Amino acid sequence: MNSFGKLLRVSLFGESHGNGLGITLDGVPSGLPLKFMDFAEDLGRRRAGAKGTTPRKEPDLPKLLTGVFNDHTTGAPLTILFENTNTRSGDYTKLREMPRPGHADFVASQKYGGYEDYRGGGHFSARITTGLVAAGVIAKKLIAPVHIEARLVEAGGNPNIEEAIDQAMQEQDSIGGLIECRVKGLPVGWGEPFFDSAESLLAHMMFSIPAVKGIEFGSGFQAARMKGSQHNDNILSMDGKTETNHAGGINGGITNGNELVFRIAIKPTSSISLPQETLNVKTGKVETLVVEGRHDLCVALRAPVIVEAGTALVLADLMMQEQKVGRIWQNQE
Amino acid sequence: MNSFGKLLRVSLFGESHGNGLGITLDGVPSGLPLKFMDFAEDLGRRRAGAKGTTPRKEPDLPKLLTGVFNDHTTGAPLTILFENTNTRSGDYTKLREMPRPGHADFVASQKYGGYEDYRGGGHFSARITTGLVAAGVIAKKLIAPVHIEARLVEAGGNPNIEEAIDQAMQEQDSIGGLIECRVKGLPVGWGEPFFDSAESLLAHMMFSIPAVKGIEFGSGFQAARMKGSQHNDNILSMDGKTETNHAGGINGGITNGNELVFRIAIKPTSSISLPQETLNVKTGKVETLVVEGRHDLCVALRAPVIVEAGTALVLADLMMQEQKVGRIWQNQE
Amino acid sequence: MNSFGKLLRVSLFGESHGNGLGITLDGVPSGLPLKFMDFAEDLGRRRAGAKGTTPRKEPDLPKLLTGVFNDHTTGAPLTILFENTNTRSGDYTKLREMPRPGHADFVASQKYGGYEDYRGGGHFSARITTGLVAAGVIAKKLIAPVHIEARLVEAGGNPNIEEAIDQAMQEQDSIGGLIECRVKGLPVGWGEPFFDSAESLLAHMMFSIPAVKGIEFGSGFQAARMKGSQHNDNILSMDGKTETNHAGGINGGITNGNELVFRIAIKPTSSISLPQETLNVKTGKVETLVVEGRHDLCVALRAPVIVEAGTALVLADLMMQEQKVGRIWQNQE
Amino acid sequence: MNSFGKLLRVSLFGESHGNGLGITLDGVPSGLPLKFMDFAEDLGRRRAGAKGTTPRKEPDLPKLLTGVFNDHTTGAPLTILFENTNTRSGDYTKLREMPRPGHADFVASQKYGGYEDYRGGGHFSARITTGLVAAGVIAKKLIAPVHIEARLVEAGGNPNIEEAIDQAMQEQDSIGGLIECRVKGLPVGWGEPFFDSAESLLAHMMFSIPAVKGIEFGSGFQAARMKGSQHNDNILSMDGKTETNHAGGINGGITNGNELVFRIAIKPTSSISLPQETLNVKTGKVETLVVEGRHDLCVALRAPVIVEAGTALVLADLMMQEQKVGRIWQNQE
Repeated sequence: MNSFGKLLRVSLFGESHGNGLGITLDGVPSGLPLKFMDFAEDLGRRRAGAKGTTPRKEPDLPKLLTGVFNDHTTGAPLTILFENTNTRSGDYTKLREMPRPGHADFVASQKYGGYEDYRGGGHFSARITTGLVAAGVIAKKLIAPVHIEARLVEAGGNPNIEEAIDQAMQEQDSIGGLIECRVKGLPVGWGEPFFDSAESLLAHMMFSIPAVKGIEFGSGFQAARMKGSQHNDNILSMDGKTETNHAGGINGGITNGNELVFRIAIKPTSSISLPQETLNVKTGKVETLVVEGRHDLCVALRAPVIVEAGTALVLADLMMQEQKVGRIWQNQE
Repeated sequence: MNSFGKLLRVSLFGESHGNGLGITLDGVPSGLPLKFMDFAEDLGRRRAGAKGTTPRKEPDLPKLLTGVFNDHTTGAPLTILFENTNTRSGDYTKLREMPRPGHADFVASQKYGGYEDYRGGGHFSARITTGLVAAGVIAKKLIAPVHIEARLVEAGGNPNIEEAIDQAMQEQDSIGGLIECRVKGLPVGWGEPFFDSAESLLAHMMFSIPAVKGIEFGSGFQAARMKGSQHNDNILSMDGKTETNHAGGINGGITNGNELVFRIAIKPTSSISLPQETLNVKTGKVETLVVEGRHDLCVALRAPVIVEAGTALVLADLMMQEQKVGRIWQNQE
Repeated sequence: MNSFGKLLRVSLFGESHGNGLGITLDGVPSGLPLKFMDFAEDLGRRRAGAKGTTPRKEPDLPKLLTGVFNDHTTGAPLTILFENTNTRSGDYTKLREMPRPGHADFVASQKYGGYEDYRGGGHFSARITTGLVAAGVIAKKLIAPVHIEARLVEAGGNPNIEEAIDQAMQEQDSIGGLIECRVKGLPVGWGEPFFDSAESLLAHMMFSIPAVKGIEFGSGFQAARMKGSQHNDNILSMDGKTETNHAGGINGGITNGNELVFRIAIKPTSSISLPQETLNVKTGKVETLVVEGRHDLCVALRAPVIVEAGTALVLADLMMQEQKVGRIWQNQE
Repeated sequence: MNSFGKLLRVSLFGESHGNGLGITLDGVPSGLPLKFMDFAEDLGRRRAGAKGTTPRKEPDLPKLLTGVFNDHTTGAPLTILFENTNTRSGDYTKLREMPRPGHADFVASQKYGGYEDYRGGGHFSARITTGLVAAGVIAKKLIAPVHIEARLVEAGGNPNIEEAIDQAMQEQDSIGGLIECRVKGLPVGWGEPFFDSAESLLAHMMFSIPAVKGIEFGSGFQAARMKGSQHNDNILSMDGKTETNHAGGINGGITNGNELVFRIAIKPTSSISLPQETLNVKTGKVETLVVEGRHDLCVALRAPVIVEAGTALVLADLMMQEQKVGRIWQNQE
């Protein structure tokens, strides 16, 4: 299913080369100021254009179809549409016979019995995350002044991103990247023990983003190699501030008042220009495939704003749940 | 909330030092053979006893309260209870004033206004995962012959687990660990694009397990440093088998017919015998705390069977969803 | 929230006088044949035109935005849009001061703090059910050959519908109506005990349709006046057929192999041309209101196809859940 | 599935003649005072004993297994158990061959492949509602001072309940009943348009109660026979009070500040002592069945407190959702 969230719920729809794509947000409170221009910055960050991104350019103009009236949210479902304008589906028909290594082509064809829209990856395309970024703009407004910042800290194993991109371009290869996300201003108390832990929900959301293969909070995988005396964060004050932040801002699934810190591993783009060996499902033999079409050399370049959007959506939902509990509890005194 | 799953849904309840704990499974199909002894092996693996685990011994005898009749599941909700028998709550009352570093003590107290059951970590205790392990026994039966195996591959950064435990005991410190989980026999097609991707659901479940701080699939964080030509897994045959398995058995959120592989980072146990500095919430000053009570030196020792259980529950749910789609699709021909 | 369903999930969005409205169906299996013309008949039945319906004419042409490719469903979310073309919002601005008796005007304004799109009832408009009817077309295909038929059996208390409409037109008043829905071809076993009983889900869906104020299954309210010896349906054969059908085709929340029968009470349209007394929220005084604008005289006239759509969606979802259980259970033998 | 609710979620489990039954409430805020004795009154109203109820007596002592500490709720899942003590399963074995008319025997056997716990109706037994009543006690506390009162207004078509029971006893037959539920003190704004309308959720819950066959709000089925000029409730003041209450306290799915009023039709108990004709599934022939065992003559006698409990659970959940929206909305100013 393509929905996520409890009190703030998003539903994705759309395809890469169909009419377009979009997202519906249900549960957005009424009265939130919202204008077309509010989306420009984040959508711009996701859009292609920079060196290392796909030559396919889409204007990505959000159409606020429903749920907004007089530049404010109404409390009704808020649907945002993006039309596809720059599609060249001819590029993709050949791939029906030879599913691309590293892609969803093969599993999609098996799962949907060949009825899937295979053009440009169809519903599996990273282009669908455009809707997620738009939803993130709204979620960020809801949680203000909590502030989220994700950035690419490494590409192809190289902290010098520019250099890494140049090298990959020369090699006609793609590269992966490492994204770090930091959230400032979180109060104590968002998240729940066990299944609705802040980590569970954030990880759930992050692995919904195509190409994500790992996530770690605070010291993460390094924590597996530490001792308790090193890892434990000494609590210093009643607002929960700790001396160190190995926990990455979460204890027992609940935000602890410190900066939320996590890292995301993004695999290299699967579509590369170099020849690859793969099954020809028609002949049943392994043959050589050269993928044409237009692709990102490093999807991680465009991913930070998607990571921010997903983070904002999860946090806004947790905030709405927590505010509720606070209010109820006071009623009982 | 303390529930997870769509067609196979588990709900956890209980506390470390209260009456007991348990789990309800909703959606278990009728007719599955199930006896008391089926739980012995996995519960034994989770139970304390080995070197490096807590001196608190609990028999952990599962009571099949509902949903089982004549040694078969009935299709009605299946509730399993575990009574607490070996509780020494006196150990914990002091910790109310001085929340343990690395623990949920502080956030729980803030979130629940001081009403939480703080004895032994209450509902935050890893003891609650006993129910998860019991549920996993049933989920493993449902997905047979798919086979799951998780094991501790590293403790405190040392592949020699025995040595690592011995050293930590000498230092009176705790250590973290790295768990690897492998699933054989999965067909192509379990999981969905985006929010219900196999990775999203598995990660969600894994971060519900206390002390988990990271997860990576296939090459994981290493993938962020790879090139596409290295990372892409060439498809070799119609059952989806690939030459390499950098993807860890999942493409586009969907199982691809190869072994599912992921790794989990477990942080060191927060409770240690060494003196630590933390806030005294009564005096408002940072003071020295020495945690008494009975604790695991390396929770990762007992975690593999919990990881298996969580994995089995997620996979059983995905299987039930996928079988359904297959059936419906045939109806349309 | 504006979503309903478990394996087949619909999400509504839109407003009466905004850009348009639509629905997203998630969980539609791939490979179902679907063309634009498939929607014509049912949308035609919902559309205004006949005597007693609103003079507002909308073409209601469904745009299959996503999830359909080469005239078949793809398995991805299926979004259908309807643009608004015939809006005269000037009619409604006055009603901001004087909420219409029987309408959602007052509660919407209170709940959403005045930010709701109040034009033509906004998101509360019965026009939103256009999406539901379109979704119903797909659901009916999924459950074929199960056949649903709802019809208006009484309007304004008169089984002669034509006569009842004529009289109401003369009186410039509106009238309610009684709808009966019958479903043939259901197998034994759809639905669950307690919260997911077939009756619970159908009633939930029916009360989502504006103006519905009552529902009864089988003998319904008459059953409250019967004796067990009269009400019990004697079972006659292994396919569950009973001598009578006082239960309306459901026992213990589960379909029993007989015809499913229920009745729906629709209240009279709230908007009437006759003068009414209501609060002026600006002056705080009760004043006389004459509602202008274009309205249905008897919404029940257009409701049968909406009732069918809602029924089809619930039944398709239950079918998908039940097929799954059947399949799993066989695996265990 | 056996769960219901969004922020306050209940999960039922148990059987009539197994170990016992229970309910888990997830989402109960912490700090609510709760003692064993709080349950006595409502459980007493549900318990058998009065003329016309089953001779099976169960003490129905609630065991507060989890989620309560020092006589207050902790915020963790709250599980309440009831043990079965007075079971005479021998009564029921014969019914395997001859499913009782009007009962779930036949559909359960078909749906669960014969694996269901058939003793005393198993999981289909009205005894399972004991847990619902216990949960209702907690929900009533949460929504105080909102006050719910349900009462039996008619039995077997006779407003003189005593007389109706006496007559049915003489005839060795069972009778149905009509229950009216009234809720005072509701504010404007609980509920949502469409799928989460207050009517949808209440109806969903009510049809989860065994033997319920109809529900109507306000004028209900009578509204289908009214004119708009009669049915519309004129609004008189800013707190939403209306001159009449034909809507039963709900407009557009949202509470309007007036008394919430609905009626429930309860069918006669299916188990009667009179001989009935039904299928013998072994012989395949219709034969005469005389049901023995202990049964209620009029289940409607014990149902009002169950109706109250279900109503309280739905309203508490809506309250928690609405408080949230209110709070968020204020943040945006």
